[in-house]
Amino acid sequence: MSLGCTLSLDAMGGDDAPGIVLEGVNLARRRHPSVKYLLFGDRAKLKPYLDKNPEVAALCTLHHTEVAITNEDKPSQAVRSGRESSMWKAIQAVKAGEAAGIVSAGNTGALMAMSKLTMRTLPGIDRPAICSMFPNMHGDTVMLDLGANAVCDVRNLVEFAVMGECFAKSVMEQGRPRIGLLNIGSEDLKGTDVLRDAAQVLRDSDLDIEFHGFIEGDDIALGTVDVVVTDGFTGNVALKTAEGTAKLYSQFLRNAFSSSILAKFGLLFVRPVLSKVMMRTDPRRYNGALFVGLNGIAVKSHGGTDALGFSNAIGVAIDMVTRDLNAQIAKELSRLNWNVTQGQSVAVSE
Amino acid sequence: MSLGCTLSLDAMGGDDAPGIVLEGVNLARRRHPSVKYLLFGDRAKLKPYLDKNPEVAALCTLHHTEVAITNEDKPSQAVRSGRESSMWKAIQAVKAGEAAGIVSAGNTGALMAMSKLTMRTLPGIDRPAICSMFPNMHGDTVMLDLGANAVCDVRNLVEFAVMGECFAKSVMEQGRPRIGLLNIGSEDLKGTDVLRDAAQVLRDSDLDIEFHGFIEGDDIALGTVDVVVTDGFTGNVALKTAEGTAKLYSQFLRNAFSSSILAKFGLLFVRPVLSKVMMRTDPRRYNGALFVGLNGIAVKSHGGTDALGFSNAIGVAIDMVTRDLNAQIAKELSRLNWNVTQGQSVAVSE
Repeated sequence: MSLGCTLSLDAMGGDDAPGIVLEGVNLARRRHPSVKYLLFGDRAKLKPYLDKNPEVAALCTLHHTEVAITNEDKPSQAVRSGRESSMWKAIQAVKAGEAAGIVSAGNTGALMAMSKLTMRTLPGIDRPAICSMFPNMHGDTVMLDLGANAVCDVRNLVEFAVMGECFAKSVMEQGRPRIGLLNIGSEDLKGTDVLRDAAQVLRDSDLDIEFHGFIEGDDIALGTVDVVVTDGFTGNVALKTAEGTAKLYSQFLRNAFSSSILAKFGLLFVRPVLSKVMMRTDPRRYNGALFVGLNGIAVKSHGGTDALGFSNAIGVAIDMVTRDLNAQIAKELSRLNWNVTQGQSVAVSE
Repeated sequence: MSLGCTLSLDAMGGDDAPGIVLEGVNLARRRHPSVKYLLFGDRAKLKPYLDKNPEVAALCTLHHTEVAITNEDKPSQAVRSGRESSMWKAIQAVKAGEAAGIVSAGNTGALMAMSKLTMRTLPGIDRPAICSMFPNMHGDTVMLDLGANAVCDVRNLVEFAVMGECFAKSVMEQGRPRIGLLNIGSEDLKGTDVLRDAAQVLRDSDLDIEFHGFIEGDDIALGTVDVVVTDGFTGNVALKTAEGTAKLYSQFLRNAFSSSILAKFGLLFVRPVLSKVMMRTDPRRYNGALFVGLNGIAVKSHGGTDALGFSNAIGVAIDMVTRDLNAQIAKELSRLNWNVTQGQSVAVSE
C-alpha cells in the first residue's frame, strides 16, 4: 500500500526529539521501505545519527534550521514569528508539493494554526478537527474532534461526522461505519440544542451514512459505534480521561504484581497474556492524530511518545496519503449543501 | 458516627428493585446498626422478604404504594403525574421531617426534579449538582457536576467548587482539599470564557479554598486535585468514559486469563492481588452520588447496581446526615456575595 511517497518531518517537535523522530523513521522503514523523508531540524543534532545509520540516511534529505517551536509558544505567536522553525518549514514542504504530508510531535495548537494557514481547509469544510482511534471491546473506535474546536455548531458536528466516516472507511476498512453523537443520555431529549439539531440534520440529510443516534461516554470503549462525533472540548476531556483511567489500571496492576512473592511467582505464568493486554491497549499503538478537513495531510504525534509511537504516527500519515482520504471527504461533502436560514445552518439535499 | 437517624428509601427504583434495596438494607445494618428505614413500595413485593428477615423488618416501616417511576418517564411528567409514586412519597418523608435523607436507584432526572421541587435549594445556591467519588492513584477524587446541568455559568461552577470542597472535607476528611477546574489544557488561555471567568473568581474571591487552577481529563485518575469541578455535560461524559475504559480493561484481563492453560494456572497465584485491584476499582464501592446544593439529603444509587452497591449508597446518605454537610456548605457560601453586574454574575467579598 505504501508506494514511494515522501513525508515531511518536524524533527525538533516532541519531548525526546530529535531522537524519537530518527529512531521512528528507522522503525517505519521496515514496514514502508519505499517512503522517503524530508527532515527539518538542527543539522548538528541530526547528523551524528544519520552518519551512524546509513539505511536511515539513504531515505532522508536534511533541511537545516535551528529554530524550534516549544510547547509554551502560543499558536498565534508561533504563526507570526515562527517562520524559521522546523514545524513551519516542514508544513511549507507539503504546500510546495515536495512532500505528501507532514508529521510532528510538537505543539498541537501551533501545528494546527500553521497547517490551517498554509494548507487551508478542504472546499466546503468550515473547521478542521483532530481525529484519532481508541481500542474498544472488539476493535477500534474513531473519535473526533479531540481538541481543535472547544465550541462547535451544528455544521461543524455534521462535517465531523462526514470526515470521521471517511476516516473509518479508509483506515479501518469498514464498509458502513456507524456514527454516534456523544451526549449525556441516549434519549432524543437529552443534551444541548446544538446536539439535538445536529442529530436531526444527520437523520434527515441525504448523506449516505449510518447514523446510530446519541451515545454516552461508556459507549466509546464498548464500541457501540465506529465513529464518535463530539466537540473538541468534550472529545479532549474524554480522550484524556480514558488515558488517565488506563494508566490508573496499569499502575494498580503493576503495584499488585510486585506486592507479594506469590504474585511475582504467578506473574511468570501470566506474563505472556498480560503482555497481550498491554499491547492491545498500548497508547503508542494509537499514536498519530490526523488533522482532518485540511487540504493536505498533517499528523500530530503525542509529544511524550517514543520511537515506536512516532513510527506509528508516520504510519497514519502514509495510510492517509496512499488511501487518498481527502478526495473521499470532498466527494462525501458534495452531498451536503449548507443553506444558512434564519441564522442557523441547515443541510438540504442537492 | 451513624447515630440513630432514619432514611427514606425508594424501594421500587433500580433495575433489580426491590431486591437490591432490601438486601442493601440487610448489608448496611451491619455497619450502621442503629439506622432505621422508611420503605416506600409495593407491599406484595416487599413483605415476603421482610417476613423472612426479621432483623431487617425490625428496622423498617413499610409505606405501601404500587406506583413506580420508570426510567422512561420524563422528569417533568414524573413531577406532574407521579405524586403517588414510591419516589415522590419517599422524598416527601424527608420534607415532613420523618426521614433525614432519601436514597433511590431510580430515574436520575425524575429524582433530581422531584427533590428540587420538594426540598428547594440551599439558600444562595442557584443549581444543585450531582457529586460522586472516583478512585485515583493515591486515594479518591470528588467530581461534580456529573449530569444535573448540561450548561453552566460562572456562578454555577463557583458554587460547585464550594460544595465539592465541603463534600471532600466531610467525607474524605481532608484538611484542605485542592480544587481543579476541568479544562482542555492547563494554561490560563485554554478553554471557554465561562471557564476562564470562573477561574478568575475562584482565584480572586475571599473564599478560603485551595484553588489549583485548570486540570485536564487525565488528572482525574492521577489525583492531581481532590475536587474536580465541571459542568454536567462534561462531567457526565468523563464519568462514563472512565467507567467504560475500566470495563474494557477488566474484560481484556478476563479474556487474557482464560485464553491459555498456563495463564489459568498462574491465576491461582495472582488471584489474591488481582482481587485487591478489582476491589479498589469496584464501581459498587463508588456507588452513591449525592445531589449537593439541595436543602436536604438525596442520594442517587446507580440503577444497575446490586445490594452491595445500594448499601454503599445508603452509607453515603448516612455520612452526609451525620456530618451535617449542608450546614457546612451554607457556612462556606456565606462568604460569597453574588452581585449581578451587567448581566454577568461576579463574586465580591462581603
